[in-house]
Amino acid sequence: MTYLENLGINAKKAEASIRSISEKKKNDALAAIADILTENADKIIAANAADLENARRNNMSDAMTDRLRLDKKRIEAIAEGVRYVAELPDPVGRILSEKTLPNGLNIRKISVPLGVIGIIFESRPNVTVDAAALCLKSGNVSVLRGGSDAISSNKCLVDLMRLALEKNGINKDVICLVEDTSREAVNDFMKLNRYIDVLIPRGGHGLIQNAVNNSTIPVIQTGEGNCSVYVDASADIGKAVDIVDNGKTQRPSVCNAIENVLVHRDAAEKFLSALEKRWSGKVKIFGDRRTSEYIKIDREATEEDYKTEFLDYMIAVKTVDSLEEAVDFINRCGTKHSECIVTENQDNAARFQREVDAAAVYVNASTRFTDGGEFGLGAEIGISTQKLHARGPMGLEEMTSYKYLINGSGQIRK
Amino acid sequence: MTYLENLGINAKKAEASIRSISEKKKNDALAAIADILTENADKIIAANAADLENARRNNMSDAMTDRLRLDKKRIEAIAEGVRYVAELPDPVGRILSEKTLPNGLNIRKISVPLGVIGIIFESRPNVTVDAAALCLKSGNVSVLRGGSDAISSNKCLVDLMRLALEKNGINKDVICLVEDTSREAVNDFMKLNRYIDVLIPRGGHGLIQNAVNNSTIPVIQTGEGNCSVYVDASADIGKAVDIVDNGKTQRPSVCNAIENVLVHRDAAEKFLSALEKRWSGKVKIFGDRRTSEYIKIDREATEEDYKTEFLDYMIAVKTVDSLEEAVDFINRCGTKHSECIVTENQDNAARFQREVDAAAVYVNASTRFTDGGEFGLGAEIGISTQKLHARGPMGLEEMTSYKYLINGSGQIRK
Repeated sequence: MTYLENLGINAKKAEASIRSISEKKKNDALAAIADILTENADKIIAANAADLENARRNNMSDAMTDRLRLDKKRIEAIAEGVRYVAELPDPVGRILSEKTLPNGLNIRKISVPLGVIGIIFESRPNVTVDAAALCLKSGNVSVLRGGSDAISSNKCLVDLMRLALEKNGINKDVICLVEDTSREAVNDFMKLNRYIDVLIPRGGHGLIQNAVNNSTIPVIQTGEGNCSVYVDASADIGKAVDIVDNGKTQRPSVCNAIENVLVHRDAAEKFLSALEKRWSGKVKIFGDRRTSEYIKIDREATEEDYKTEFLDYMIAVKTVDSLEEAVDFINRCGTKHSECIVTENQDNAARFQREVDAAAVYVNASTRFTDGGEFGLGAEIGISTQKLHARGPMGLEEMTSYKYLINGSGQIRK
Repeated sequence: MTYLENLGINAKKAEASIRSISEKKKNDALAAIADILTENADKIIAANAADLENARRNNMSDAMTDRLRLDKKRIEAIAEGVRYVAELPDPVGRILSEKTLPNGLNIRKISVPLGVIGIIFESRPNVTVDAAALCLKSGNVSVLRGGSDAISSNKCLVDLMRLALEKNGINKDVICLVEDTSREAVNDFMKLNRYIDVLIPRGGHGLIQNAVNNSTIPVIQTGEGNCSVYVDASADIGKAVDIVDNGKTQRPSVCNAIENVLVHRDAAEKFLSALEKRWSGKVKIFGDRRTSEYIKIDREATEEDYKTEFLDYMIAVKTVDSLEEAVDFINRCGTKHSECIVTENQDNAARFQREVDAAAVYVNASTRFTDGGEFGLGAEIGISTQKLHARGPMGLEEMTSYKYLINGSGQIRK
């Protein structure tokens, strides 16, 4: 038996053991996890130091190294996050519908955990604890596969969480770590559909496409966001500049930041000059020829630019002739994440919302609001950009499935 | 460009064209489809004759040939089915939730079509029309890949449906048929994730496993049913015999028929002798040694038998020592479809429903009720045995996704 298969078998066993776990037991375990992490901050920092030393040897960029770093304050913040998850409503056991048929059969549809959730993610060790906590709260077993950059930190964090589970009388395999971080192991991991019910890849385009093309486990695609704002002919220019500026510069590295601006030719001159004034060089602008007639562009935009998630102070701009052209552009170049129209025309707003195929379609508001916290879901495991199961921010409820419970008194089918 | 890629591109274009189709237009088109099928019954019967002639040459079994045959009455029944679908409530555009945040942002979650649905199925040509009608009603484009046995019938049926779409001003590619029924084409079809949003394989274990292992399109597994009834120590023996008999013999060829019976040792003697009396040889019984102490078995049951969907007058029986053993057996051998306990003990009933991992878990009723019609969903495209997206009978609502529409007045994130 291979290492991964053994891991899968243990995870599946752990799933059966927590299928009926009480809300109190889950919350107690989450509290214990929060406590054990803060109590062992020094140990975690020591483990993290090995990853940081390795990062230094590999010439990791300062920004990446910073994401990898754990200190007392960050560990306390991670623990606070776990305590916050414990406070959220239990998503399991909700009665989603109930009816009694004329023959007396009672049919209840109730929420249940998905089962075993595999999560593949990159460097940030805070994801390790966050994902494990959300899975535990929703009654799911987590099998975590973080990047090799954070393996020492992840081992330490997972060991501590498993200790907290054991102390609370819960099978420790409710939280599992894939310690083999080789590329081959990722590909083998994606074939464990006998043991893992759902795979959530969290990361860049390459990681997600690898999962889509090779996983035999059902995949939920999350977090690719090539988002656009369309400034309509009737747009309020002040709102448009605010929304575009907020979407691009408030936090450029996240998936709900914008990457493209489309502007109707009738609004182009006013809007573009106002935007140029607002940014005054802070953001690199790649534009089509018509855009360059109104403002100075850094270079001409290519088709590739329009399909690129810059995640940086760069934006691709296009002047369009119609709402229809904007919708077609978005449905062709976007990643079905978050899209926005700025307009004072109600018909255009409604048409844009109807015809754009994306998880979140905005009228006159920043795409930066696409977030489990902002949407009132409490927390999120990711933002789904596919249509099966869950779309947009995935909170605890989206981490459940359901089953039908049918109670009778001897009914048979005629 | 390949034949299949071209088909995919056309289907995706058709999807955009019907994204905002009205309920009336969909229902008018469904009525037109029903009419055109009945008006052209002779043409359909002629096309079907070619398939039947081919079946004869290939020595197809009588049962299979009967499933393939279309006559005036069957065509009228198919058309009636389409008219029935038209009458069902529109699953698209439902407001699933709505809230207004303190900052004034209004967030609505509304149901939308999944997009383009690929369906792979086997011989029965009635599925062709049924699936296309359910997809159209739910605003989805269907790409149908039926078996080679029914290709002449399917071409005729799809040509007629596309004619009805065109006459109603709808892009005819809203219903597409994959005319290449080769094995290679099935495998290429499963890789069309750029154009197809969801793949529903309807058929046997081999077809479904091929999709799970090779599709890059998200798959919904349907229709594999290795269902069991567990007769508890406290069972009412009369109810138990009725439920087991109904589950096995009322329609043995369907996925919600039962394939295994587990009986608690304390109920074994009474229950098994009553069952033997009821069936008196009508059903072949494969049993374990303990079962053979109470009744005559046809042969000893193997582990393979317990995992086999017989779909015939055969059953595998096992005498068990406890509820726990029954639950473990079911979670190990079942396909997560429909499972039943017969018991007068409420605690055991609740425990069984909690611990058995299946789409439908019954207490004292026949598993034959797992059906979209019986559950009040109106119709069904299949019975999902997986946990992502939909579980159990999939009606029109389960053929939709959702999107968030967010309306503001210039809100930006702080």
